[in-house]
Amino acid sequence: MDSSAPIGIFDSGVGGLTVMRKLIAQMPHENVVYFGDTARVPYGNKSKETVLRYTHQIIRFLQTKNVKAIIIACNTASAFALHEVEKAYPLPILGVIQPGAQAAVNASAAHQTSGNRIGVIGTYATIGSRAYETLIKKIDPESQVFNQACPLLVPFVEEGLLEDPLTDEIIARYLSGLKAQEIDTLVLGCTHYPLLRPAIERYMGAAVTCIDPAEAVSQQLQNVLETAGLLRQVGDAGAAPHYECYVSDAAEKMTEFANRILPFQIENVHKINIETY
Amino acid sequence: MDSSAPIGIFDSGVGGLTVMRKLIAQMPHENVVYFGDTARVPYGNKSKETVLRYTHQIIRFLQTKNVKAIIIACNTASAFALHEVEKAYPLPILGVIQPGAQAAVNASAAHQTSGNRIGVIGTYATIGSRAYETLIKKIDPESQVFNQACPLLVPFVEEGLLEDPLTDEIIARYLSGLKAQEIDTLVLGCTHYPLLRPAIERYMGAAVTCIDPAEAVSQQLQNVLETAGLLRQVGDAGAAPHYECYVSDAAEKMTEFANRILPFQIENVHKINIETY
Repeated sequence: MDSSAPIGIFDSGVGGLTVMRKLIAQMPHENVVYFGDTARVPYGNKSKETVLRYTHQIIRFLQTKNVKAIIIACNTASAFALHEVEKAYPLPILGVIQPGAQAAVNASAAHQTSGNRIGVIGTYATIGSRAYETLIKKIDPESQVFNQACPLLVPFVEEGLLEDPLTDEIIARYLSGLKAQEIDTLVLGCTHYPLLRPAIERYMGAAVTCIDPAEAVSQQLQNVLETAGLLRQVGDAGAAPHYECYVSDAAEKMTEFANRILPFQIENVHKINIETY
Repeated sequence: MDSSAPIGIFDSGVGGLTVMRKLIAQMPHENVVYFGDTARVPYGNKSKETVLRYTHQIIRFLQTKNVKAIIIACNTASAFALHEVEKAYPLPILGVIQPGAQAAVNASAAHQTSGNRIGVIGTYATIGSRAYETLIKKIDPESQVFNQACPLLVPFVEEGLLEDPLTDEIIARYLSGLKAQEIDTLVLGCTHYPLLRPAIERYMGAAVTCIDPAEAVSQQLQNVLETAGLLRQVGDAGAAPHYECYVSDAAEKMTEFANRILPFQIENVHKINIETY
């Protein structure tokens, strides 16, 4: 494996760009290949069997790009598929749930007033899998976990309603139960939710720490690459990192969304037929 | 072609069951095969190329069920793909847009106070295609058409929020422009919208006629089958009609939704891998 090989990262759609942004901030020298499954988005209300099949197809596609490691940015795919794919391919494959769970336990423990009360929000699929709850309780058996599926938040983000009275209302409806439980930490268990972070923090109040698993998984991947001697060397030929984006549906929408949230312009987004992988 | 062969009908997901319901009411003796592309739903924010590819796959699948005719219940697929597929297969293929446009013109003309002012609501894809507008103006060049994409209505329906203050708010936001234009007729240009009909009618007021294209396409198909001598005869062996449902993702969700809106229980929903067709 070549240290100048790219990191692969994928999501059901464009939401995973929030993870790519954290990854680039953490490891600014790395080359990255992103895939967004925009022809089949969303995953969050689909079944484990279907999401697992999609995940295998995407990993096979990313292998054709000679990636040295893969981040499953999508929480739903991490919850449903990581366990089945992480040993099936000869490269490191990381999901967002384990690092997110660890970060949540750490943040909760840091609270002075902590009763280790952790909330988790996500899609139906992610919440239904209880993947966060299982891992959080494995790390800290004392913790109490409160789960809430928030299926309408993804469409609201896709509509760009990040700051809107209707968004505030739907957030209040979904999160009122977690607020009543006096959680101290809230896991943003979907790649779209960090874009709603200001609205969510406003509703939950300053005493609640929001956790974006993207930061933790980027740190974890850096450790994995470092241990394996696979961090890209600054002295490598062509020092400026290279970013490639692929999608399964039309490229324009991806480009628009990407350029709204990434700290640089994405110019070339390529469309592929993911069903053939 | 055998008159006892089933009618095929498909949609991006479960919404097309509203069309199946009308079809069964119109032609209670017909056998029906339904396909819902639940593994790739929704279509309404995907590209023409992708929706066209999906439509070909689904028609090829329905052909394996020996259907005698196909209704494209999905407005997005009708707008993007009907023109390309209707001559490509040796059986009648009907979309919902032409009959919906005709029904809207008829309803608008029946208004005493009419200025032939017709509103159309649908997904981004359906509205962006201007398919309704083009056909309405072809039928009645005097008409004025006012278009409005309502992308959040599908997720609200999928969440079952048919009667909810938040649904009323989002309907008011989407439809206020059409109301200000004093439309007399409103085309419900997405298979999910008939489930919001009470809320939409409440907001628009009694003077506006809502058009569900499902009724018109069912009537049109009956005419087509009658002309071709393909209406199922009541005296045919096994007079009770047979209904089969297929989906591309897990069957349970489909079964639940179907049994909520159909006037009979669906017991067997079969899952297939649509990517292989």
